[in-house]
Amino acid sequence: MERLLRKCRIRSQLVRECMAECLGVYVLILFGCGSVAQVTTTEDKKGQYLSINLGFAMGVTFGVFVSRAHLNPAVTLSLCVLGRHPWMKLPFYAFFQALGAFLAAATVGLQYYDAIRVYGGGELTVTGPTATAGIFATYPADYLSVWGGVVDQVIGTAALLLCVLALGDQKNSPVPDGLQPVLVGAAVLVIGISMGSNSGYALNPARDFGPRLFTYIAGWGVEVFEAGGGWWWVPIVAPCGGALLGTLIYELMIEVHHPLRLAEEQMPRQEPTEGKMGLELEEDCEKST
Amino acid sequence: MERLLRKCRIRSQLVRECMAECLGVYVLILFGCGSVAQVTTTEDKKGQYLSINLGFAMGVTFGVFVSRAHLNPAVTLSLCVLGRHPWMKLPFYAFFQALGAFLAAATVGLQYYDAIRVYGGGELTVTGPTATAGIFATYPADYLSVWGGVVDQVIGTAALLLCVLALGDQKNSPVPDGLQPVLVGAAVLVIGISMGSNSGYALNPARDFGPRLFTYIAGWGVEVFEAGGGWWWVPIVAPCGGALLGTLIYELMIEVHHPLRLAEEQMPRQEPTEGKMGLELEEDCEKST
Amino acid sequence: MERLLRKCRIRSQLVRECMAECLGVYVLILFGCGSVAQVTTTEDKKGQYLSINLGFAMGVTFGVFVSRAHLNPAVTLSLCVLGRHPWMKLPFYAFFQALGAFLAAATVGLQYYDAIRVYGGGELTVTGPTATAGIFATYPADYLSVWGGVVDQVIGTAALLLCVLALGDQKNSPVPDGLQPVLVGAAVLVIGISMGSNSGYALNPARDFGPRLFTYIAGWGVEVFEAGGGWWWVPIVAPCGGALLGTLIYELMIEVHHPLRLAEEQMPRQEPTEGKMGLELEEDCEKST
Amino acid sequence: MERLLRKCRIRSQLVRECMAECLGVYVLILFGCGSVAQVTTTEDKKGQYLSINLGFAMGVTFGVFVSRAHLNPAVTLSLCVLGRHPWMKLPFYAFFQALGAFLAAATVGLQYYDAIRVYGGGELTVTGPTATAGIFATYPADYLSVWGGVVDQVIGTAALLLCVLALGDQKNSPVPDGLQPVLVGAAVLVIGISMGSNSGYALNPARDFGPRLFTYIAGWGVEVFEAGGGWWWVPIVAPCGGALLGTLIYELMIEVHHPLRLAEEQMPRQEPTEGKMGLELEEDCEKST
Repeated sequence: MERLLRKCRIRSQLVRECMAECLGVYVLILFGCGSVAQVTTTEDKKGQYLSINLGFAMGVTFGVFVSRAHLNPAVTLSLCVLGRHPWMKLPFYAFFQALGAFLAAATVGLQYYDAIRVYGGGELTVTGPTATAGIFATYPADYLSVWGGVVDQVIGTAALLLCVLALGDQKNSPVPDGLQPVLVGAAVLVIGISMGSNSGYALNPARDFGPRLFTYIAGWGVEVFEAGGGWWWVPIVAPCGGALLGTLIYELMIEVHHPLRLAEEQMPRQEPTEGKMGLELEEDCEKST
Repeated sequence: MERLLRKCRIRSQLVRECMAECLGVYVLILFGCGSVAQVTTTEDKKGQYLSINLGFAMGVTFGVFVSRAHLNPAVTLSLCVLGRHPWMKLPFYAFFQALGAFLAAATVGLQYYDAIRVYGGGELTVTGPTATAGIFATYPADYLSVWGGVVDQVIGTAALLLCVLALGDQKNSPVPDGLQPVLVGAAVLVIGISMGSNSGYALNPARDFGPRLFTYIAGWGVEVFEAGGGWWWVPIVAPCGGALLGTLIYELMIEVHHPLRLAEEQMPRQEPTEGKMGLELEEDCEKST
Repeated sequence: MERLLRKCRIRSQLVRECMAECLGVYVLILFGCGSVAQVTTTEDKKGQYLSINLGFAMGVTFGVFVSRAHLNPAVTLSLCVLGRHPWMKLPFYAFFQALGAFLAAATVGLQYYDAIRVYGGGELTVTGPTATAGIFATYPADYLSVWGGVVDQVIGTAALLLCVLALGDQKNSPVPDGLQPVLVGAAVLVIGISMGSNSGYALNPARDFGPRLFTYIAGWGVEVFEAGGGWWWVPIVAPCGGALLGTLIYELMIEVHHPLRLAEEQMPRQEPTEGKMGLELEEDCEKST
Repeated sequence: MERLLRKCRIRSQLVRECMAECLGVYVLILFGCGSVAQVTTTEDKKGQYLSINLGFAMGVTFGVFVSRAHLNPAVTLSLCVLGRHPWMKLPFYAFFQALGAFLAAATVGLQYYDAIRVYGGGELTVTGPTATAGIFATYPADYLSVWGGVVDQVIGTAALLLCVLALGDQKNSPVPDGLQPVLVGAAVLVIGISMGSNSGYALNPARDFGPRLFTYIAGWGVEVFEAGGGWWWVPIVAPCGGALLGTLIYELMIEVHHPLRLAEEQMPRQEPTEGKMGLELEEDCEKST
């Protein structure tokens, strides 16, 4: 059996990394959107908003445990800007992250097929009392202006990057390796608890666009792009801006002030150890074998 | 005292392992079904659906802490297929796992005897507003078709195995040994939060069949096998299929792509270190002393 | 300052241990009964039953972090029976544990003085819609018979000891030292979630009797001993029986079957390392300096 | 990029520490007050009191992860009294802690601008059914007398310091370094669960005064200082008293009784290792490079 499986080994590092991104986001959305489906279709009887927060948080945790991937194009972008990840890989990562989210949304749609059908009375609607599109992608609250939504997503994603960079910075918080996925999940949890009500804390272009595309294809129709005043582009663009802002704040206020060890001052190119969750370098090492 | 206890030491490794499986599942069901009993008989006043999720999650955690066992025939089956566990032991494991669940259900029945009697008005019913059979075994939601239920259990158990195999794979996520039971519990928690509403996330043939047998014997009668369109076989068969699917996905997408250390390439038979929760090998070592 | 404090150092080991037990239970009850007070006086608006479970669980966690003490006469009793703790110290431990609970109940009474007064309309009642005695001690649910209550407390405390002994058994689950208090708290959490509704999961004679005595003195009157059919003795006696039962099950089913390392077989008196939470020996070492 | 950022490095240790305090409290209040904003403006639909407790708890956790700072003038004061922190720095720390809280409150105000406007019907009120000032600063419950409030804050902050000092005391609980921020957050969680209903558990002069000042300036007006019978000074003064009380209790009942290692008895000036969260000394070392 082991021997048989070994035959399937893929030697290209990029393909392996893309596959990991795809599976990681798949796990994230499977648990995240699954929890929204459960709360929505049971009308809060088998879960509440806190369950949704926990679903996405632990989705991130297990997504990282399973794949050790970035899971988020905005995170990959920040690492590229910081020079810790090759720009060339960015489009591949983003595509496979969105693909994973799309496939997971399809799985949730399959698993909750009966529930969604009965809850919506046979209709797949984007707005109204039995809307089910919100299971998959995010939509803004009624009161929210588009610019309010942009501000909301920029602040949320900046907060996410601030936490993720701190957790991955070995000179700041010496988090045990095996617990970083748990703490990254905790960061997503607290953001969901404190910044979730305005527009559903997408924080991640792939998390939002993949499932939205699924709903477009699967029968919710073009309204998924029109609802909320054409909201769909906000969770794609704003998280990228927010990620860069959070990265800048962390670098300027904390990271550049770490005292250098002598050896590092002389060999500055040894630095990039502090990739996302401190795993970047190890990943590269292992994968390049 | 110590000396007296030592007299009771059992030398057969298989008996000791079966006893551990039995006690481990006992703890799982004692806490898991106990939390359902509490929520059901207090009509959500002393707990909600999240308590039930936490009860089963922490039941798994402490079941593993107490016994370091598999707790789940579907997990044992997967490990057999992977060649990490002897096939010969599978029926023994499965029997004692179900026995532990049966005994724990009896204990919960005893502990909540007064509460169940008063809540059900003296009747033990499987369906209806004061049904109490759902405290022990799982039943599908009204809207769920049998095939929908099979899909639900396959997806759920596949997700469980994906997480459990990742947590136990030392080359993937270097989780500290003592925290693996906590994280396996967390995987059960997130599955309960995101995949619990369709049919109660049995995910485990022993967890469902043992308590169902108890209710059959204890007075709920044959309806426990008839309800939900003869639902009882689904949580036995589907989790096994799901476990194999999840194992296959993890092996094909992650595990086979780990770079081999040189030594391992030459000595491939040293591999089986990565048993369930990484403890398999140590267990064998200790138990075989 | 440091120098001044050092003057207050107490050299008697027993006095220091008793002080630690007193402070540890104080912290447990301050958080535990505090959370009941918050939920009761706000009528579930600022907390629910889960908050109470979390309050007692984290009360145990921080009680152990602060004091590294047993916190529970039933636990001390079990350790005495196992020969890991001197019988001579048992009455001192039990007294100071109850004293800590009494003082903490008084503190909670002080902190919630205004809230209790307003909630109860100026009356301190043990039963009825605005009863407040349940903030401090446990009372059985209406439906519970006395023997049902005894069974409930025996099962609950046996489950507690099973978990605590497993967490402290270095040959079973190698839990990182600094996380044992967290996991002992988790055990209390899951017991509260799965066994709390019958009679409030006292599990601990000191936790129940100290605060009950406080309510007797502070104005709730003799009814605190009469309510629930003279319930007060159950959470004193039954947890002791349950603790012994749980200890026996753990020893017979798990601990005696651990393979001995050769050195230990020859020097059996080196064994008692596995005290409660694995800290027993270190404590003795440190304290005896 | 790395090279560019490095240009911004600040060499003054005090400035760097103040910046860390400012950013740390910013994170704390961003998540903490954010969660209150979410619960308030959605009328408990997207969160409950427990979310607020989690928001502040995880706000503290990530505040410490990001900045490794004290986050609380009352904590800084206690460390000064213990001789583990220079008095000279106290006013700088306190100012930047309050500044961080002020800026975070402004950010929450910006992020929830639309939500607060719609919820309050366009009015910014301090009391009444749609009051929104409580999103930012704490106000006492109707029933609470001022002295009851002082007692409440003294007890709460004493409990906080008791826990924080125990977690940072390497001779007591050997908590893994990377988990101390999590456990400090847990202490804040349990205090919120058990002592939150009287007056909102400020426990921290900076946490309360900074956001209150923001509401004063941003349009809630002078009533933020007048409400609750001139409540505003209580969360500034009482936490300082409580912190000193908790410190005294911990030192007298636990810390002074730790056995000294021989080396330390001879070189008592080597002691100050046990700063807040055990990180004090390392911080000084790193920062003074």
